[in-house]
This record gives sequence, structure tokens and C-alpha cells, in this order.
Amino acid sequence: MSITTAAGFLASGLAAGLKGSGGKDLALVLNTGPDHAAAGVFTRNRVKAAPVVWSQGVLRDSRLRAVILNSGGANACTGPEGFADAHRTAEVVAAAFGQSQGAAGLLAQSADIGAIDVAVCSTGLIGVRLPMEKLTAGITKLVPLLSADGGPAAAEAIMTTDSVSKQASFADEGWSIGGMAKGAGMLAPGLATMLVVLTTDAIVDQALLRDQLASACQRSFDRIDSDGCMSTNDAVILLSSGASGVRPAAGDFQAALNETCADLARQLLADAEGAAHTIAIEVRHAVSEDDAVDVGRAIARSNLFKCAVFGQDPNWGRVLAAIGTTAADFEPDRIDVAFNGVQVCHDGSIGDPRELVDLSGHDVHVEVDLRNGRYSATIWTNDLTYDYVKENAEYAT
Amino acid sequence: MSITTAAGFLASGLAAGLKGSGGKDLALVLNTGPDHAAAGVFTRNRVKAAPVVWSQGVLRDSRLRAVILNSGGANACTGPEGFADAHRTAEVVAAAFGQSQGAAGLLAQSADIGAIDVAVCSTGLIGVRLPMEKLTAGITKLVPLLSADGGPAAAEAIMTTDSVSKQASFADEGWSIGGMAKGAGMLAPGLATMLVVLTTDAIVDQALLRDQLASACQRSFDRIDSDGCMSTNDAVILLSSGASGVRPAAGDFQAALNETCADLARQLLADAEGAAHTIAIEVRHAVSEDDAVDVGRAIARSNLFKCAVFGQDPNWGRVLAAIGTTAADFEPDRIDVAFNGVQVCHDGSIGDPRELVDLSGHDVHVEVDLRNGRYSATIWTNDLTYDYVKENAEYAT
Repeated sequence: MSITTAAGFLASGLAAGLKGSGGKDLALVLNTGPDHAAAGVFTRNRVKAAPVVWSQGVLRDSRLRAVILNSGGANACTGPEGFADAHRTAEVVAAAFGQSQGAAGLLAQSADIGAIDVAVCSTGLIGVRLPMEKLTAGITKLVPLLSADGGPAAAEAIMTTDSVSKQASFADEGWSIGGMAKGAGMLAPGLATMLVVLTTDAIVDQALLRDQLASACQRSFDRIDSDGCMSTNDAVILLSSGASGVRPAAGDFQAALNETCADLARQLLADAEGAAHTIAIEVRHAVSEDDAVDVGRAIARSNLFKCAVFGQDPNWGRVLAAIGTTAADFEPDRIDVAFNGVQVCHDGSIGDPRELVDLSGHDVHVEVDLRNGRYSATIWTNDLTYDYVKENAEYAT
Repeated sequence: MSITTAAGFLASGLAAGLKGSGGKDLALVLNTGPDHAAAGVFTRNRVKAAPVVWSQGVLRDSRLRAVILNSGGANACTGPEGFADAHRTAEVVAAAFGQSQGAAGLLAQSADIGAIDVAVCSTGLIGVRLPMEKLTAGITKLVPLLSADGGPAAAEAIMTTDSVSKQASFADEGWSIGGMAKGAGMLAPGLATMLVVLTTDAIVDQALLRDQLASACQRSFDRIDSDGCMSTNDAVILLSSGASGVRPAAGDFQAALNETCADLARQLLADAEGAAHTIAIEVRHAVSEDDAVDVGRAIARSNLFKCAVFGQDPNWGRVLAAIGTTAADFEPDRIDVAFNGVQVCHDGSIGDPRELVDLSGHDVHVEVDLRNGRYSATIWTNDLTYDYVKENAEYAT
């Protein structure tokens, strides 16, 4: 039930003193092979943190041996010095492997690791340099701690405002997928940075790994829309060890990857402490999946809609107003909207009485029927609450 | 200092019982001529309220005799019945003029007004039919009340969550412009509907009136960005009576119109009760004005940035992250950001200490220098506060 569930992976996590709280803040994941295929999906924000730029670079050959992750500092907007810090972090990890003897013998195989084999992920405050001395000292201690039981410690070390660590796994006949994630769902303090590491012992070709990771992300993490803000640090990295010796059918692996990502996405969503409601916005009968996603996203980003849900008000007018800002293909007078099964809007106009809607529960289901095509998509978000404002107003202080 | 400041205009306002509060909720503006040129700018939301559709229709000939406005109901998302209500409202106004004798003789000239000469504006809750009996009865009383002193009563009648009514005027040699507006600035409950009526006694050709109104709106109302939500009812209508007999130079009229719109925009901004800060986001040295506006708008729409300002935190990382979501032409490592004059970000990286920034005052100035071109634009917004959530969560209940 962690990133070390899959064979061929070791992990560790410890407190290096990056976090003021004294909690674990440094994690390492090692792929002991025999394969080292890897793929990554990163933030589309044009302002990218140094570790994102570094990791995109080292992933160009679709191979990785290890991932080092830290909380307690995003290393974003830190200039050339910040990039040098990310580079140096990878170098220190590689050097630590070279010096390590490795109790289980597995580490010995890692003596030839170079900085170019190490991806770096960071999360925390933007615009602050990392304390490199503490980080370097931490890495030296982290390598000997690597173990096949180290998944939970690693998952704990990447937490920032998360209230719980997030892990997932999927097991098929003879092969498996493991994963860990950080991110406080929709509440999104600190730009909602989401870090995810996925591991598998299945044999998967590099090109397929890349395509299937992109596809799985698109239908899971990409459909959680907190506040429309895009992090400078988002990263999803998938490592394949091939240690099971099994090459699953492409469709089977895609399904397993989708399920693992969806599981982690649900955990991110559930950890939105400041939110009073989890909202599923299901858009049906759009002329394309893109249209369905656009419409769902526009609603999920409407502050007025999100405040209304907080106030337990099935304000379908705000839903329609949000839809009206999109370029999706629809006719305003054909749209139906239901809140928790009550169709309060029919043909873009007044439907059943809004008094029939009960929004007192945690889960809210908004169904938008464009009655215009055959594609659907569901976007997940949360309501806009006093606690959202509080967390995000106080985060840096 | 009102819409009746310009010669050739009468106005009135009264309580027709549309608002639960018993306050004034119905306003009428009459252009007694001799000219009846008119222009309008309306919401770009594809879900348009019935009165918007009606008014766009009757403005097709760039002529109007009167505008009827109501608060206490937006008549949006009310289907074909709602459109029939808007049409009927204009008919009732026209009929009331036909029956009226007119104390000042001016009304007598209005006996030939048809529904097609009357624009309709509504504001209030979406998805609720207007109480047409009360509205009709109100219109009958409204016509005899029309007077050259009626501007303030009309301005009061269009208020919803506004704490004060908004009026403006501009006087040049022999001609003038008057205006009124409703909208609670950035606080934006009820989709931030903004209604504006402008009047002038200058002689202005219809085509010029249209172009100049569009231009004035683009640089005033369009640059106030509350919460990214777009109303179904926004309308700005400009009426010209030509009663001064003066035809100002095009540049002079444009400048006066710009100034009047900017004045009303500032009043909308100042009436954001729930906001703790008014934020001017000045984007400099963009390669185009569109780029500058796009960048400013992305920042203004970042909930994380807006919460940070509420928390008096000069979080320039969130500014950069917002810029990074745009398609504007910029290099991340050339951007400078200053909060109230302190350059906390230089070359997209750490600048002066954020401790030097004082955000305790009401006005916050964020300057973003893209160092990439010669165009600038300023977008105005407010912070995201507990009161914003409160007002918008409770609005419909």
C-alpha cells in the first residue's frame, strides 16, 4: 500500500530540519532495477520551479534511478542560484550512493548513479532559497535508511499542509503499482502544489509509460480543480523497475494506472480541511470531452458558485452564468441543471423548487446536461469557505 | 451631478414593491430630445438575461427614447416567459407615456413612444420571474414623477447590495455628460451586475457614440475585475439628446466620456464593503496592451494572491505563478514585482526583503514590470475576505 509495494523499490524519509515544525521533510525513492524506465508530467505554469526544470531535463532520456523530494521549501522563483541548488541536490544524492555500502547489497548496484539519473521535487514556500547545508546533511543520512519498508516514511516527508499522508497501490497477477502523493486537495494553500511518485514492477516500454501516465493524469489529477491556481512545482513521476518480470497488456496497465491515480486524487480531495463540501460537477451530453471539461472547470472556478454551495444555496443561476463564459458548444435555453438529483433548472429556466434541494451533507452532486452531444466529464472541487480564506491569508506568516 | 444634469433628460424613481426591503426599486430615464441617438455595451456572457436581449434588439437602430430599470429581480434564466416580461415592461412604459399629459409639456412630446424605443435593465436574483403586476402599477406612477431633478431618485432605485448610490457628471463649455451606476464593486454579490446609464446633451453622431462608448468602457469598467465572474445582466447605455446644440470635437467628447466612466468605476470600486483592500495591479512594459491586461487580470483572479493581500502578505510568488498561467509574451527571469514601492521580486527571483512592505493601509499598489515592451495597463480588484464569502454565501437566503 505504498511506493515500496512494487518490487525493486526502496524508500526512506527523515527530518532534515527544513520544516519549522521539526517533522519529516526529506524523502528518497530508489529504483533498484533491472529496468529504469521513467516518465513525468509537470506543471503547465510557465513560471516553473527550479526542480521542475531540472527534472524535465533529466527525464529527456526517459530513464531515472532515483527521486529526491523535499517539503519545507519550493525552490521556485529563486533564480540561477535556485537551479544550481536543484542540480547540487541531485549531485549530492548521486555521490551519497557512490559512498554507500548498502546492507542489502541492492545499494551497491547504485554506486554508478549520476546526478542525471536523479529527479528532484520540492514543495513549500515560493521565493525562498533552500537551506543547502541541512539538505546535504539530510541526504547523507537518508541513503543508509533506504528500505523496502520505507514507503510510509517517504510519504510522510512530503507533506506540507496535508493532514494525512496519501498512499495507494494496485496489485495484479504477478505485478503491481504503488504510489504516494502530497497536496491538500482543493484547499490549496501554497499554490496547491501536488507531488506524486508512482512505482511499478511491471515491464513497460518507455514510450508507452509516457503516454499512459499522461492519459491517467488527464482523467484524474487534472480533473480536480481547486481554485484555478496553477502551481509552479506540480510533478507526477512514474518509475518502472521491471522487477516482476511480467509485461502486462497495455490496456491492463493503463486501467491499473488510472485506478491508482484516481485513488490518490480522491485522497487529495478528501484532505481539503477548510472545505465544508466536496462538489462533483458532472457535465453530460457535450459535443466533445473538451467541451465537457471546459464547462465543468468554469463552474468549479466560479467563486460565486462556490460561496453559494458553502451557504447551502442551490444557486443554479450562478451555474448558468459560469457556463455562459465558456466557448463550449451549447444553447442556453436547452441546459438542465440538477443539485443532488433535484432539477432546479430546466431548459435554461426555472425548474423544480430550490427548496427541495438538501445541501446539508458533505457531498454535493451538480449535474449539468447540455443536451447537445454524447460526451461527459466530471470535475471535482470544493466550496469557498471562511477557512479557505484563513488558511491562504495566513500561510506565509 | 446626475443623469439629469445633461439638458433634455427627465428621470424618476420609486418603490414598486419589488424589493423585500421596501426601498426604491424602479427607475425611468426619458430623453426629451431633440436627438435620440443611443448606444449600449452589454455583458459578453452567452447566458444573457431577458432585458439584455431585449435592449440589444431595440438598440439595433441606435435610437432610444427611454430606459426603464428595476432592482429586486434580474429576470435572467426565466425562459420565453421572462423575455415576454421584458417586452411587456417596455410596452407598459410606452403606453404610460401615451396616456400622460405631462406637466412641463415635455412629456406630451413623448406620446408617440413605442416599446421599441424603450430599453430595459434589471438587476437582482437570477432565476426568478418578475412580479409583473407590481411592476406595471409602478410604471404608471413613475411617468408623472419624471422631472429634471429626478436623477438622484433614479440612481437610488437601481441599488441592490450597494451601500451608496453612484452618480457622476462632466461639464464642458455649453454641453455636459451625466451618469449613474449600480454595483458593489469587487464584492460582487449576485454576479456583480453593473448597470450604468449615461446621458449627454452634446450632439454626437450615432456611429461615433457607439465607438466612443465601447472605448470608454474598455478602459474603465472592463478593467475592474472582481472575481472573474461575468454577470448575465451587465449593461451600459448612453443616450444623447443634443439639447445643448453644441457638437464637441470627437476627442473632447471621448475624453469627457472616459472621465465620467472612470469616475463611476472608481465609485463601484470604493463600494466594496466586504473588502479590506483596494488593489491596483499595474502591469508595465508589456509588448501589447492586451498582454498587459491579460497579465493584470490573471493576477486579479488568483484567489491565493487575493487571500495573501487580505493577510497583508506581499506574496510575490503567487503573483509570478498567476503570470505564468497566461499566454502573454514574457521571460520569467526578467519580471520585477513591487508591492507598495518595495521591489520584492527582481529578475523573477528574490528581491528586497518582504518585511519592508507595509500592507496595513486600504490601498495596495502592485507593480509588475515585464521589461519586455512599451505598453501598460492597470487592473483594479479587491482582496478575498471573510466578508466576501459571507455576502455571497448568504445572498439568496
